[in-house]
Amino acid sequence: MTENEVPETHVLAIASHVTSGYVGNTMATFCMQTLGCQVSAIHTVNYSNHVGYRRVRGRKSTPEDVEELYKGLEDSDLANWDVMLSGYCPSAALVEQVGRIARDVRSKSAVKPGSFFWIMDPVMGDNGRIYVAEDTVPVYRHLLYDADLILPNQFEVELLSELKITDLNTMNQAITKLHETYRLPHILITSIRLPPTTASTPTSSTETVSNPAKLTIIGSTATSAYTPRLFRITVPALPIYFSGTGDMFAALLVARLRQTANEAGLLNTMSWQSPDEVEATDLPLAKAAEKVLASMHSVLQDTADHYNSVVKQMDEESKRELNEGKGAKAEADKDMQRHLRLTRAAEVRVVRNVSALRHPEHTEQFRAQPVFLDDGTQTPPSV
Amino acid sequence: MTENEVPETHVLAIASHVTSGYVGNTMATFCMQTLGCQVSAIHTVNYSNHVGYRRVRGRKSTPEDVEELYKGLEDSDLANWDVMLSGYCPSAALVEQVGRIARDVRSKSAVKPGSFFWIMDPVMGDNGRIYVAEDTVPVYRHLLYDADLILPNQFEVELLSELKITDLNTMNQAITKLHETYRLPHILITSIRLPPTTASTPTSSTETVSNPAKLTIIGSTATSAYTPRLFRITVPALPIYFSGTGDMFAALLVARLRQTANEAGLLNTMSWQSPDEVEATDLPLAKAAEKVLASMHSVLQDTADHYNSVVKQMDEESKRELNEGKGAKAEADKDMQRHLRLTRAAEVRVVRNVSALRHPEHTEQFRAQPVFLDDGTQTPPSV
Repeated sequence: MTENEVPETHVLAIASHVTSGYVGNTMATFCMQTLGCQVSAIHTVNYSNHVGYRRVRGRKSTPEDVEELYKGLEDSDLANWDVMLSGYCPSAALVEQVGRIARDVRSKSAVKPGSFFWIMDPVMGDNGRIYVAEDTVPVYRHLLYDADLILPNQFEVELLSELKITDLNTMNQAITKLHETYRLPHILITSIRLPPTTASTPTSSTETVSNPAKLTIIGSTATSAYTPRLFRITVPALPIYFSGTGDMFAALLVARLRQTANEAGLLNTMSWQSPDEVEATDLPLAKAAEKVLASMHSVLQDTADHYNSVVKQMDEESKRELNEGKGAKAEADKDMQRHLRLTRAAEVRVVRNVSALRHPEHTEQFRAQPVFLDDGTQTPPSV
Repeated sequence: MTENEVPETHVLAIASHVTSGYVGNTMATFCMQTLGCQVSAIHTVNYSNHVGYRRVRGRKSTPEDVEELYKGLEDSDLANWDVMLSGYCPSAALVEQVGRIARDVRSKSAVKPGSFFWIMDPVMGDNGRIYVAEDTVPVYRHLLYDADLILPNQFEVELLSELKITDLNTMNQAITKLHETYRLPHILITSIRLPPTTASTPTSSTETVSNPAKLTIIGSTATSAYTPRLFRITVPALPIYFSGTGDMFAALLVARLRQTANEAGLLNTMSWQSPDEVEATDLPLAKAAEKVLASMHSVLQDTADHYNSVVKQMDEESKRELNEGKGAKAEADKDMQRHLRLTRAAEVRVVRNVSALRHPEHTEQFRAQPVFLDDGTQTPPSV
């Protein structure tokens, strides 16, 4: 095994920072660094922990804080990166600031195609609920003109495309609209929930998509005509909610896409866009996602094992307390304590699984598959 | 090779953060995480880059910022760590705040000996020059009562002990004073510069110490009578100045000391202090330092290679410019550009050398040696 599969890569990462636990930049920085990326991290918030604990302290960064750090980097000739990864911002004004930075870095690298690549995670909400200020949505929509790859979840694709997604056909329409309208080269949708359909053919992927114990991602790199090239990967889902998995996915994808685009000889091509003859499942984006999901599956499995051992320990403690007649503590207190302990137990164990991040195994179980629409056609039609 | 040599370890790291490059927490967090430690990072400053670039922007944290994050962690039952590592603070008030946090965490873990261990890097200055506010010095001195291990350089030992160090005998006196006065269990001095002596025996370690191409560290774990048990390790020094090596040393030592103290069965012993019969060179502190220096030597060698390749490239560019008659740029501008580029080239390449961090090689070249004082006696006298 070589020391570094990922070529020398400088990344600007703009997202949240937490002291304890693994979300935002705290997750992403470590994952990218472990794969050999030089990461410049600018934090959009500086919190004690993620909001899943229900209690959080710390401060939000202002657009001026972020601008000041960027200017400092410019002063010292450090404002040059191969990739920018942007995530959660606590205000629309900060999203705008991030956009200004991306455009500025890109304009300086415009003479060298492919020398700057912006991966945007348009963090706005999930499961039909927006958890940022409403005025953030149109700002993200406008930034689509400048991004190379976006990593929305299904709900965020709906917000960006202004189309409701109910099946693979409407999913395809939304992706097509984003490719065409914004000249957006790459899209990868990270968590897909489609209702069960009465699919005419048993091979229809919607059956798998609707299986609650499975998780599907769908990606596309546009052709030169900005039509989608869709692939999907379906993986076993674990029955535990882990925070920060989106940030983990994004960070590992930065490193792996750099690797697979490099292997395909695309790093000097505008937006690392594959020639039209490359099939969806052979795209560097698909190859990168396979490696990412293989790593994540190992790390999350280990996290689930740890979580379950904590649950078992807590159950034993409860039984002992009952036997010893200690039940005096108020129920609300106990529930909160239990919640805090389980939330902590579900923190993704990235730092205990460096090998799984660097050398994913069983990648053959995560092979990208072509996507067939409900009328049975493949997108794009196989050549 | 096992996945994690270092046992499960939660570390609170309080130090500076920079967006670009590797110093303070930016260096320490990655090094500890790569060895499997769960790191909670609180930043004392949030800067664009380290001050070696001569230009820097960003903000200092206030004691209130740090307190707020700590309170947030307490609120969610996350304020429990096995180890605390503290580094640079931009004000005496912030050093005091760090001391309050250390005492608070320790008081909560007082019922379990060894369950909390504070490693303090008393960052005050180097080479006879103080680079923090003068009122910081007495605050650090007072905190010595609470620390388990300190990692000063030679100048900082002088500031703390109020003794001038000119040879191994005065070094021994300073270490003895710190052990005795503050009941300080462990001391490790990270960069030693002693003047050449007319040593009577060629085996006197001061000869090696004074060799400019060598770098010596001296460590001691006190006996139960608070007398020193001194060991030294002398390593080849590279002729390039790297920022952040002190932070790298401290971070790797956190992980490795946890490992060697665990292997010695000391994690449930107050301050992980070895029994009196353990010789200086067999101390967990000595064993840990050996591994740390072996890792560092590989990583710094790779960094030096990179640095030299940048120097070569710059020389070639200069020659080309001269030949092409391009020399119009002002000398001052050129000097600054050159300085910035070289400073960046000297950023320690930790993220490109994960294997060297996790699996140090040639550790036999970094074996701890006993220390002989100038009168030929060993400290402590060999049993």
